Amino acid sequence: MSVHTLQDLADRVNGRILGDSSLEIRGASSLANAGPHDITFAVDEKNLKRLKKDARPGACVIPEKLVSSASVEGLPFPLVAVADALDAFLLILREFRPQPPRSTIGVSAAAHVAPTAQVGADTNIYPGVYIDAGAQVGSRCDLYPGVYVGPGCKIGNDCVLHPHVVLYAGIEVGNRVILHAGAVLGADGFGYRFRNARFEKIPQLGTVIVHDDVEIGANTTVDRGMIGPTIIGQGTKLDNQVMIGHNCELGKHNVFASQVGLAGSSSTGDFVRLAGQVGVADHVHLGQGCTVGAKSGVHRDIPAGETHVGAPARPELEELKIVMATARTPEMRKQIRDLEARLQALEKRLDSPAGSERG
Amino acid sequence: MSVHTLQDLADRVNGRILGDSSLEIRGASSLANAGPHDITFAVDEKNLKRLKKDARPGACVIPEKLVSSASVEGLPFPLVAVADALDAFLLILREFRPQPPRSTIGVSAAAHVAPTAQVGADTNIYPGVYIDAGAQVGSRCDLYPGVYVGPGCKIGNDCVLHPHVVLYAGIEVGNRVILHAGAVLGADGFGYRFRNARFEKIPQLGTVIVHDDVEIGANTTVDRGMIGPTIIGQGTKLDNQVMIGHNCELGKHNVFASQVGLAGSSSTGDFVRLAGQVGVADHVHLGQGCTVGAKSGVHRDIPAGETHVGAPARPELEELKIVMATARTPEMRKQIRDLEARLQALEKRLDSPAGSERG
Amino acid sequence: MSVHTLQDLADRVNGRILGDSSLEIRGASSLANAGPHDITFAVDEKNLKRLKKDARPGACVIPEKLVSSASVEGLPFPLVAVADALDAFLLILREFRPQPPRSTIGVSAAAHVAPTAQVGADTNIYPGVYIDAGAQVGSRCDLYPGVYVGPGCKIGNDCVLHPHVVLYAGIEVGNRVILHAGAVLGADGFGYRFRNARFEKIPQLGTVIVHDDVEIGANTTVDRGMIGPTIIGQGTKLDNQVMIGHNCELGKHNVFASQVGLAGSSSTGDFVRLAGQVGVADHVHLGQGCTVGAKSGVHRDIPAGETHVGAPARPELEELKIVMATARTPEMRKQIRDLEARLQALEKRLDSPAGSERG
Repeated sequence: MSVHTLQDLADRVNGRILGDSSLEIRGASSLANAGPHDITFAVDEKNLKRLKKDARPGACVIPEKLVSSASVEGLPFPLVAVADALDAFLLILREFRPQPPRSTIGVSAAAHVAPTAQVGADTNIYPGVYIDAGAQVGSRCDLYPGVYVGPGCKIGNDCVLHPHVVLYAGIEVGNRVILHAGAVLGADGFGYRFRNARFEKIPQLGTVIVHDDVEIGANTTVDRGMIGPTIIGQGTKLDNQVMIGHNCELGKHNVFASQVGLAGSSSTGDFVRLAGQVGVADHVHLGQGCTVGAKSGVHRDIPAGETHVGAPARPELEELKIVMATARTPEMRKQIRDLEARLQALEKRLDSPAGSERG
Repeated sequence: MSVHTLQDLADRVNGRILGDSSLEIRGASSLANAGPHDITFAVDEKNLKRLKKDARPGACVIPEKLVSSASVEGLPFPLVAVADALDAFLLILREFRPQPPRSTIGVSAAAHVAPTAQVGADTNIYPGVYIDAGAQVGSRCDLYPGVYVGPGCKIGNDCVLHPHVVLYAGIEVGNRVILHAGAVLGADGFGYRFRNARFEKIPQLGTVIVHDDVEIGANTTVDRGMIGPTIIGQGTKLDNQVMIGHNCELGKHNVFASQVGLAGSSSTGDFVRLAGQVGVADHVHLGQGCTVGAKSGVHRDIPAGETHVGAPARPELEELKIVMATARTPEMRKQIRDLEARLQALEKRLDSPAGSERG
Repeated sequence: MSVHTLQDLADRVNGRILGDSSLEIRGASSLANAGPHDITFAVDEKNLKRLKKDARPGACVIPEKLVSSASVEGLPFPLVAVADALDAFLLILREFRPQPPRSTIGVSAAAHVAPTAQVGADTNIYPGVYIDAGAQVGSRCDLYPGVYVGPGCKIGNDCVLHPHVVLYAGIEVGNRVILHAGAVLGADGFGYRFRNARFEKIPQLGTVIVHDDVEIGANTTVDRGMIGPTIIGQGTKLDNQVMIGHNCELGKHNVFASQVGLAGSSSTGDFVRLAGQVGVADHVHLGQGCTVGAKSGVHRDIPAGETHVGAPARPELEELKIVMATARTPEMRKQIRDLEARLQALEKRLDSPAGSERG
């Protein structure tokens, strides 16, 4: 275990210490778990309030702009003020958990690399990897054990394919792409014709194209197109267990949380955000910069920039009103019954010989 | 890149050309992506309208029955009329993307095949496959790298097991079955007894039986039964990331879209269709030919032939009415308040000395 | 196929026979599938009723406490009365399906075990397993083909890691843990900063800690924490295709059905039960002993012991009332229209010269 004085750490991140700079720091931890010799961090007023209420760290990194916050006053431990608290904390965290340098195992003799396949410089091919005919893997990549690269695939530079990633034939992957364990790219799209009382498979002759800087989560699946490609745009991040159907075309810098599913031929603009377990029907377009709330079911296009929620998904404010009103439906039923009774009483009263205004 | 005249291609599919038969075609593409030297296809009026509005392909395959459609008139590119446009297009597509013949690698020395296991003729066992004791694999199968076949499994003829498919002990798979990468058949069903303040595992001693012509998607899981088998009926197609719980019995020619989940001991008739992310509770029966809409939650039997949607799932028309009415609940709340006010006014008026009809 | 007399089987489970003890039993089967020479079992009145109505087994194991039930009277086959029908039946089932003894293959030469890794006594390391530097595997474990154990992982004793289980670097697993095929522990949490119009990866430097007696289903994913660990408490059971986000902390003896998803930093008390396809937002706490119904969407804390359902999740009774009332919204709209018409008629009547009470 490494030990640093608070001064050492503050110097490391160009921080300004408020309090005892000689304090010994033995670890870096989250706000909730930090002990008296751990350093932690806060990024906003909400964090500061939790800090004041619950937490007892050894020290805390905070943004300069929060130094004069009322929540900071009277904190019984030293602070390190910096421009960007998260960045600074991550640097400090690495002091305590030094990451091992990248391995350099080269191409393992226990991997299978087809004679016609190409592997770039400084790329690690672990035991148990299978690279089929004509595939190309760029430089400085890591292909962990069990990775399967089908015939004719192309993988760029600086990619990481974690264990058991599967690329079916002909898949194209850009540069700096991270594919997590168990991700499957290029399985056949789910296409059948119902004929002669059975489902006939429609051959899926398209491919998958993954652009630069994409990250794809564990056990996520991206199906190959039927004719053209399924496309994952540059910088897009897919969490675990996401499903992208055949011929979908995702824009740049999308972020899909886990267990999201897109049926075939849907498309998105850039900067689209889908929360967990969202489902999107086929042939739907999600406009640039739109957001969809958790568990929503989308079956119509969403205009650029809008936030939709619910199943069926609607504009957020509209859905919120409906959810709130729906929660009152039991009360509404009573109100209707009550109105009905009072109305009937009035009608009776007006109709009765004594009460009738015609009487 | 191969190049064909339109005449060549039309001959290939017994098509009748309307327009310039000498046009050079260099590729086959979807309607949206086809360029001036690509051929595409349309199957219905909706496609034809998109064709007229947006698309500028080199040529288009259409069904004979649509030749006299108004949407066809004036299209500025040649057409190829055929009996079945999709079939014809797929034939043409293969001209441009010839599929490599099936590999014949036989049983790789880098695979593990137990001495008591049997492998049929013309079957490919790739490096890294593991076939345990007593397992039987039929003829003309492909078992890709990382496939695991547990002790005593039986696999029929002409099956394809993509990379990392896992068959636990004793699983039976019929003929012409396709299992996509990462599919897991026969993991223990999720069964526990709560006793002595903890969950005790109930041994799962059943199996999984997959009948002929089934296709199972990437990372889909089918659990083994507790006592008897979990059954996937003939011709049934499961998309990616589907979950079939223990002791489920699926009929023939079912189609389940991705991320569908069935809890234990549910069953289906033949020709049942479930859209994406549907959940089905345990011990539910879905009748022959029924359909369930995306994201629905089914916890009661569905009669044969019906279409149910929603969570809880209801007959489609009923649910549609509820969804539409529910969207009006904010308005209904206002209407009720308004009625209340008007009613109160009437009551007051009738009760007031001046307004009373008794006055 | 083994054959036993009913007497043999009853002796095996200390059972008391009601009926013909000489009957030959050739198999053990579920209530629905048992034939005239199969033994089956019933645990409650519901089973007994199904037994009376549909089933025709050779014999049936029942609990002593149900012997005098009216549903038992007149059953045309012998019964075996025992203290615990499920336990007894499982013992009998094993007579007909003897489980092979655990293999003892030791450490396969076709596995990769880093020189600095440690493997305990009587542990099986199958071909194709990869154990990286500094990893420790306890005694009496089974690591099936394709298992990947990253650098510095620690695995306790008596664990089973089914094929293709992936443990990223530094994951800790307790004793008697079962990890099913394709489960991925320790992939990076889904954390990014949006800066300079792109998503920057936040390094995920935490880990995953899995305590004793946990079982994790096929293709389930548990992400590593960003700073601290993601924790799966003792005795907790996760079904297939469950997703646990980074920094979640699950208590002891939780049970999560398949396709459940927890976003980051959520936590649970002990004995929490989540039904299938439940989604839980980030930073939510589910109190001890609470239950959440299938497909629910939870975005607020749930107090200990409560049952919540729906999306958004609410206390069960409340949600039930809302669901029932919501089903009547089409009718309510009609009622409101009707009230409106009648009220208008009254208003008119009171306002009309003839009908006015002022007239």
